[in-house]
Amino acid sequence: MTSEAVAILGGTGPEGRGLALRFARAGVPVVIGSRDAARAAGIAGALAPGDGLPLSGAANPDAARGAGIVLVAVPWEGHERTLLSLADELAGKVVVDIVNPLEFDDHGPVTIRVAEGSAAEQADRLLPRSTVLAGFHHVSAKHLLDEAHPVDTDVLVCGDDRAAKDRVLALAERIPGVRGVDAGPLRVAHILEDWTALLLSVNRGYRANTGVRLTDLDPARRRL
Amino acid sequence: MTSEAVAILGGTGPEGRGLALRFARAGVPVVIGSRDAARAAGIAGALAPGDGLPLSGAANPDAARGAGIVLVAVPWEGHERTLLSLADELAGKVVVDIVNPLEFDDHGPVTIRVAEGSAAEQADRLLPRSTVLAGFHHVSAKHLLDEAHPVDTDVLVCGDDRAAKDRVLALAERIPGVRGVDAGPLRVAHILEDWTALLLSVNRGYRANTGVRLTDLDPARRRL
Repeated sequence: MTSEAVAILGGTGPEGRGLALRFARAGVPVVIGSRDAARAAGIAGALAPGDGLPLSGAANPDAARGAGIVLVAVPWEGHERTLLSLADELAGKVVVDIVNPLEFDDHGPVTIRVAEGSAAEQADRLLPRSTVLAGFHHVSAKHLLDEAHPVDTDVLVCGDDRAAKDRVLALAERIPGVRGVDAGPLRVAHILEDWTALLLSVNRGYRANTGVRLTDLDPARRRL
Repeated sequence: MTSEAVAILGGTGPEGRGLALRFARAGVPVVIGSRDAARAAGIAGALAPGDGLPLSGAANPDAARGAGIVLVAVPWEGHERTLLSLADELAGKVVVDIVNPLEFDDHGPVTIRVAEGSAAEQADRLLPRSTVLAGFHHVSAKHLLDEAHPVDTDVLVCGDDRAAKDRVLALAERIPGVRGVDAGPLRVAHILEDWTALLLSVNRGYRANTGVRLTDLDPARRRL
């Protein structure tokens, strides 16, 4: 079991807070990052006050520096600018992009085309000294934050570095109810990102917060 | 329970044969369509010989004419040409595009960008007198053809006509082990099509034939 520290950049939103809470509950040290250090600290302190969780808040650069694995959960609008400003702090780190480039209109979610192919590939371009993966796109923030609700989903992770991917899959599985799945190379990240829009479309039709499971998948058959 | 006849254009491939077999087993009359009527008839006859299934083969235009719901399972390369040639026969029908525009290289599957957004939206442009939906992209042909293997997957269907979508969801659920899910409007079809490449990428990594299930979804909560 890994217990390396995790930072969640832009971790003050629902998804970041939900992941922070569940990781910290599992004993993983987590730092919530934000542009505003005081806000990050306030949100970390409010997540499970008095429970003594290994959970704190910091400005994004400080959060990144202290972590082995850094999750990127900033809004798509701030994605490029934020990562560009943190290239030094993220050098040598495993960076997991969990951002979904999408917007909404009257008919529901719409995917946004990214010049690089995906948010994760944009991160990969902006962070040449980091190992960039993509994952955690499909975990319902609502369910993560509701600790009475068991998490029931696969976390699909893609990337081109097998060792880094193994670390992130192990991290994902620290959350009870999560199965980590190696989804392949980084170039499939756009499919993972767009799938979030599909789940939101289903959620809209069924008033739900769906997750995803792959069937007929035996983890023991993963190729070396 | 609907028992309206189904045609599967380009139904001589593994996916078409698999769906034809499972539908026919469930009592749905199925016609496998092909450019070559004799080949279609031969394949239909060989699928479950002597079992008296409501299964036959015909040339694509004849198959289309006799059916209420027509599944399009042609190779992507022949998609535009085939549909253009069948616009008259498909007029007034519910057409379900199950085609996945993708190719393969040394690193696995690669999605193909379609000018209209998706194969299904291309079909919608080519068939203005038909009601075009998309669905059935993620059902493993191998599992469909292996009747000893229980099918364990959701069939996600998208489209802009609610009544047509209900008919197709009901058809999907004729296959034991399938749950039909309304995935939203036709414009999300590209996400369903691309997801096939994601499953193939996972299949490659795990020597598997995966399917997909959405979790935390209550069919009774579907909006009217």
